[in-house]
Formats: sequence, C-alpha cells, structure tokens
Amino acid sequence: MDEDGWTADLAREALPADLVRLGIGDDAAWLAAVPDGWVVATDVLIDGVHGVVADVGAAALAAKAVHVNVSDFAAMGARPRALLVGLVLPRDDTASCLEGVRAGLRAACREHHLALVGGDTNVAEGPLVIAVTMLGTPGPGGLVTRTGARVGDRVSVTGPLGGSLGGRHLAPRSRVEAGEVLARSGRVHAMMDVSDGVARDLPRLCRASGVGSLIDLERVPVHADVPEAAPDRPMRALCDGEDFELLVAHAPWDDDTLAALARLDATPIEIGVVTEAAEGLVLVRAGVPQAWPRGGFDHLASVP
Amino acid sequence: MDEDGWTADLAREALPADLVRLGIGDDAAWLAAVPDGWVVATDVLIDGVHGVVADVGAAALAAKAVHVNVSDFAAMGARPRALLVGLVLPRDDTASCLEGVRAGLRAACREHHLALVGGDTNVAEGPLVIAVTMLGTPGPGGLVTRTGARVGDRVSVTGPLGGSLGGRHLAPRSRVEAGEVLARSGRVHAMMDVSDGVARDLPRLCRASGVGSLIDLERVPVHADVPEAAPDRPMRALCDGEDFELLVAHAPWDDDTLAALARLDATPIEIGVVTEAAEGLVLVRAGVPQAWPRGGFDHLASVP
Repeated sequence: MDEDGWTADLAREALPADLVRLGIGDDAAWLAAVPDGWVVATDVLIDGVHGVVADVGAAALAAKAVHVNVSDFAAMGARPRALLVGLVLPRDDTASCLEGVRAGLRAACREHHLALVGGDTNVAEGPLVIAVTMLGTPGPGGLVTRTGARVGDRVSVTGPLGGSLGGRHLAPRSRVEAGEVLARSGRVHAMMDVSDGVARDLPRLCRASGVGSLIDLERVPVHADVPEAAPDRPMRALCDGEDFELLVAHAPWDDDTLAALARLDATPIEIGVVTEAAEGLVLVRAGVPQAWPRGGFDHLASVP
Repeated sequence: MDEDGWTADLAREALPADLVRLGIGDDAAWLAAVPDGWVVATDVLIDGVHGVVADVGAAALAAKAVHVNVSDFAAMGARPRALLVGLVLPRDDTASCLEGVRAGLRAACREHHLALVGGDTNVAEGPLVIAVTMLGTPGPGGLVTRTGARVGDRVSVTGPLGGSLGGRHLAPRSRVEAGEVLARSGRVHAMMDVSDGVARDLPRLCRASGVGSLIDLERVPVHADVPEAAPDRPMRALCDGEDFELLVAHAPWDDDTLAALARLDATPIEIGVVTEAAEGLVLVRAGVPQAWPRGGFDHLASVP
C-alpha cells in the first residue's frame, strides 16, 4: 500500500461525476464551471471526540465524516457532489484504520453519489483524524442562509430530536432532498442543521438574522432514542446534539411543500416563533418562562 | 473565545475576495461561478511529522500548511484564491496553539492574498493537526498536469534542491508566478512540485505520463542548505524533500520565457531528459549508471 494508491482506488470506485474535469492523482483537482458557482464546507472528525473507533469501528467514523458534511449542504438547500479527505492514521493501528476508513468512505460516497477528488494521507502518534471538505452546487431553489429570519416567522424542525448519541449520530438520515424542497418552497427565510443541539444552534441562527425567538418546550418533538427514564425528555431533545435535522424560520407552509416533505418523512414540526432581537431567546414550559439552557458543546469553551 | 469567533475574526482580517459570494459563518460557503471552473487541493500538517511545534511554533506550522497547498497550485499553473481550515488543537496547549495557528494563517493568507471561507475547530488528546483545503482558479495559461511528458523532453527544476529541513521547508518561496509563466510558455508538457524529493516525485510524473527518464546527478543543483560536510551532496539534493521548486518536462525554452523566469529567480536548471517507458528511471554519475535511490518518504510504506 502506498499513499497514492488507496485514494486512486477509491476514486475509481466512486460514481463518475460529470462535474469533475480532472480527478484525483495530480497536484490538484479541477472542477467544471457551473452557472451558480460552487458551495464548500469542511468538518473534522476525531476518534474519541465524535465517536470511539474501538466501539464503532473506523468505517463508521469515516462515514459520519461524510454525513455531517452532507448535512451542512442540506442545511442550505445545496447538493453535495465531490469531496476531499485529509487523514491522520494512528501509528499503532495504521492498516486496520485505513481499511475501515476506506470502507466507510466508499459506502458513504455511494449513498450520496459523491466523487473523491483529493486526499492526503499521514501517519502520526495520536487518534484517527478524518478531515472532509465537501464541494457541491446550489440546488434548484438556490441557497438558504441563516440570516433571513423575520419577526413573526414560525420556527420548525424536520424531525424528532435527542438521544442520537445512542447510535443515530453515526448515520443520520440525509436531509438533502428535504433541504431542496424547503429552499424551493419560497417559504423558508433561514435554515441550518441541528448539529450541536437546538439550544445552541438556534441562538446562532437568531444572531445571524438579528432576531429573537420564543420556543415552547412542550412542542419540541422528542425522539424515541431519548430513554423513557430520562428525567426531562423535552430538555434532552432541545439540548442533545448531532440530530442533523433541519431547523427553519419560515412563513406558513403551502400544501404542496407539506406533501413533498411528508413523502420524505420530513414533515415539519413547529416549536416556536421568531421575535424581536430585544426579546432575546425565551423558552416556555406550560406557559412559564424558563432560563435558556446552556446546552450543546463548544470545543473552545475552556479557552479564555 | 468560542469556535465561531476566531475564524470569523480571521475572515474579516483576510483580504477581500471578489470570488466569494458567501463567506464564513454559515453552514457552507459559496464561491462565484468562474469561466474555467475551480481548482482544489488538500494537505494535512501534523506537529511532530511536518515540523515540531515545540521548536518552530504553531504559527510556522500553520503558515507551512498554507504554503504547501499554494505550491500544489503553482505546480499546475493555477492561482490559489481561498481556503478552508480544519483544526485539531491539543488539549494540553489549546490556547497557545490556537493563537499561533491564527497568527500563522493570517500572515500566510496576506502573503498569498487568500480568503478564509470555512473552518472547523476541535480539541483532542494528540498532536496539533492542521488540514488546509485550497481553492483557486486556472491561471491565464491554463492547467499543466503530470501526464503530458513526451520522449525527448528535457527535465528541469526551478531552483537548487536539498537541505530544506534546516528551516526553508517552513516558508518556501512562492512559485505561483513561475508556474503561470511556465504554463503560458506552451513549452511545458508536464509539471509538479518537489515535495517528497525528486527521487520520489519524478517517478510519479513519469508513471502519470507513461515515460521513463535519465537524470544526470552532476547536473542536479545543490542548495547551500545542504551541509558542505554531507557525504554525497548531489544525492541529498536529489532525495531530500520539501523543496517546493517546480519539476518540469518541456521542449527547449524560448528567450521570453527564460527572461520572465529569471526575473522571478526561477531560471530552470536542466537535470536530464525524458525517455521511453521501457528504459525506466536511470541515474548517471560521471556517465556511470547508478541504482535509482530509494529516497523520499511514504507515510504508508509500512502498511502491507
């Protein structure tokens, strides 16, 4: 096995991409000119942080690295098309990690019809690191950012939340088609995916849009993966991360959009409204205001 | 400090890029449509593998992560324009590493006029990892790949080689302008950058082009960074990596190209010729054939 070999093999296995003018194997790859330009995002996954390889295998972590990037594209109504992968393989388990990563990438690339267009492979003392950069194109409805939420918008999510760390976080449902339907609907003013939990992600959307929000905890859909015995299941649903459902601020739905979303098992569930920025973030339970939970996860929280 | 903050700060500091329609801060970034499409490449740098942070500082390693990607663009005659950065910061030195990375990225982005368009920041047990994905456009001469070398071509390099690990590898000269001149000349049939040493990189170019090569060790230009006391200085020049000069297979130069390259301190030095594939790779010293050196570095060499 050499550095050049495994990525070239995988690139050959990947489905052909009409948008790749020059694929893997040279100093750089070359993507075709597309009328609306290219969309790009990056996510890094690490053994022990985003999943434990000893428990789930390197293939699952590699597939998740693709899925989380795909989710970023869904969150804008964009379509992922190609990816580059930077790898750090652990010195004490190089061969088996590489084999797992290869299998996981292959499966995820097939599932999402992605072409591998670049890679860099290294070995070091330390955990497995998988850095994926995803490339794609705006969908037919154009891109929806986080910045357009308006006072009076409803706030909805495309599925139940919470408990994903039980296993769902490794292979979330693709919301790419739902994202395209939402972008095409003309009803969605701001959108993102729920990666760090609504408690942490909704403030980001509100900050980007310059608005506040009022969320009704009793309307937050709780996923069956949240244990029945959990002390406060709706709060878990609000605070757990890695759901990878879409979070949207929107005008009232039309029937066609609702029907299309239902076919994708993405019927939106309304959990609150958009308010003036001055009202900030408010959570109510049975009509009683609660403190906004300090949920979610910030890798740099401990850095002054 | 939070995860969103430092990249947004750096994006604001970076020079404005007319090619970025939507910058950092959303689920993905959006690049403008360009007539010739986008060029993409990725490289991952690791503390202890590509430089030792305790010796050189995190800023130098971060800047090098940009430089090596820039070199990949130079190697195709492409122009780097924007980048995404995936980070793994070591848990025991998070704040100072982040500050160093930030400073190094800022300086390198300014030097190469690059816009930061995406990032993902993490903390883990393990070494500092910096994954850079570079985005850019073909230069005015179009792209030159590794695949076009022809029997009878000359083989040249744009500068002296060897000894870069003494320090030069951290901040190599940009060869982007030289790459554009070479691509525009119409004389260059195949090109790449010398990252793992000519001894390892030239076989890659030959394999991609389906040719062989005859190199004259006495013509390989030895950099002053190779110690005078080194037992075989030309062999060091041939085998050391991270020179980041350009390696080209080409027709005889014209005067205009030579003058333009001289102005860039990139006067090409001829070290050999392209031969039939069946002749393989041959090294001669004082007219006597030598074994092709097993130089360079393959991260996966120990993986069966």
